[in-house]
Amino acid sequence: MAANEVYQYSLISALMDGVASSGIPISQVLRHGDHGLGTFQNMVGEMIVLDGEVYQMKADGSVVHVDPETTITPFATVTKFSPATTVRATLQDGKKDLQALLDNLHPEATNHFLAIRLDARFKRIEFRTAGGQCRPREGMVDVCSRQTTHTFEGERGTVVGFRCPGYVMGINVAGDHLHFISEDRERGGHILGFETEGEVEVGVAVMSKFHLDLPEGDKEFDEAKLVKDEEGIKAVEG
Amino acid sequence: MAANEVYQYSLISALMDGVASSGIPISQVLRHGDHGLGTFQNMVGEMIVLDGEVYQMKADGSVVHVDPETTITPFATVTKFSPATTVRATLQDGKKDLQALLDNLHPEATNHFLAIRLDARFKRIEFRTAGGQCRPREGMVDVCSRQTTHTFEGERGTVVGFRCPGYVMGINVAGDHLHFISEDRERGGHILGFETEGEVEVGVAVMSKFHLDLPEGDKEFDEAKLVKDEEGIKAVEG
Repeated sequence: MAANEVYQYSLISALMDGVASSGIPISQVLRHGDHGLGTFQNMVGEMIVLDGEVYQMKADGSVVHVDPETTITPFATVTKFSPATTVRATLQDGKKDLQALLDNLHPEATNHFLAIRLDARFKRIEFRTAGGQCRPREGMVDVCSRQTTHTFEGERGTVVGFRCPGYVMGINVAGDHLHFISEDRERGGHILGFETEGEVEVGVAVMSKFHLDLPEGDKEFDEAKLVKDEEGIKAVEG
Repeated sequence: MAANEVYQYSLISALMDGVASSGIPISQVLRHGDHGLGTFQNMVGEMIVLDGEVYQMKADGSVVHVDPETTITPFATVTKFSPATTVRATLQDGKKDLQALLDNLHPEATNHFLAIRLDARFKRIEFRTAGGQCRPREGMVDVCSRQTTHTFEGERGTVVGFRCPGYVMGINVAGDHLHFISEDRERGGHILGFETEGEVEVGVAVMSKFHLDLPEGDKEFDEAKLVKDEEGIKAVEG
C-alpha cells in the first residue's frame, strides 16, 4: 500500500455486536500503516498507532507499549500517514473547531476519507478508555457503559484520527474519530473533548483508497448479525 | 491483488446520484480482476467482464466488445475469479434457486462477499439494459425508468455476479447482482429473471478482502449528496 490509503481490519458493526475475542496480530496491520486507531482483544483498552508504535491505553490509566508480534487486534484502522496539508490553527472549542477547520481545508473531500494528526499543548483534554468485555460477545455499547473517563490540564500530546464519509457508517465510524496520547506516552484514550493552548499544528491527508480485510474463519464474525446501530455507534464512538 | 479479492471503483450511491460523466479507463480496472460487472460513461449500457474480456450490452440489443484502453467506466466491480467451489445444480426458479444454493453452499459467508459464475442453457432469460443518461447528473432511477427489457428462450450463456453483505448497501448493492451474456456474445444485460434447462455449473468464491477506489478530482463525485436510497437501489439493481 502507498501513502495515505486506508487499511481496515473488521467492522465497527462487528465490535458493536461484541466480535472481539480473536483477530490478527498487530504486526499484520502495521504492514499497511504507521498511524491509526483501534482496539484490542476483548476490547481491553483503546489503541493508538503513532509513528509506527502501538500503544494500549487501559481503563486504569496505564499505557502499555505493545509488542505487535504477540498482540492481537479485532478492529483497527491505519494509514501510512503523509500529511498533504499542514496548518497552524487555534482550536479553542476543540472538536468543533477541528471539525470546522477540516471542513474549510478540504470542502471537496466530503465523500473521501481524511487522516488527521494534531500536535498540541492541551489546556484541557478529556478522554475515555474502555475496560473490556465482561463476557464473550458483550457488545460495545455495554462495554462502554463502564468506560472510565479522564481529564487532564496542561498536557502536551498528539491526536491521531480519521474522518470517514457518511456512507461507511457501520463499516467504520462516520465523521471524526480521534484518539489521544500524551507526549510522555503515559496517558491517553478515545477523545471526548478538548481545548488547546495557543496555536497547534494540524496535519491532514485526503484519502481515496480504502482496503477492508474481513475476519476469516472467525465463528463470532460469521454469526454476527451486524445490524447497523447508527445511534449506538455515534454514542460510543462519535 | 491476489485471486478472489474484490476491487471496486466508485460507489453505487454515486450512480444513483447521476455521477457518471467521467471515470477511469477500464484497463485500470482489469489490473485488479478478470470477472465482474459495472456500467459505462453516462450509464450507456451494462458492463460484463468475463475471462478478462469486457462487453458493453446496449439498450438496442447490440453488444460491443470493448477496447479497455479507450473506454471509461464510472462504476465497476471486479475480481480475479478462481472458484473455490464448483457444483452442478438444477435452478428451475432461477434467481430464487441460485440464492438458496449460495445460502446452502456457504452459510458461514453471510458477512463476506461472493463471486459467482454460472454457465448454462437457459430455458428463459430476461434482462434489461439501461440506455444512458439524457442529461448530466440524471440519477439511475430515472435512467432505469427507460430501460429496455429483453427475453430469450433456449439461449446458452454465462452469468457473472456478486453477492455483497448487507453492510455495503450504498457502497455496492447488498444481495445478489447478476449480469448475463450469451455464448455468442451477441446479447446480454442486467438479469431480471431466468430459468435454466437441466443441470448447470455454478462456480463460487468467498471473498474477504474489499478494495475501494474513490474518484479523484471529480467535481460531480465531490458534490454528490450520496444519500443512501436503499429502496431505489433494490428497485433498479436487485
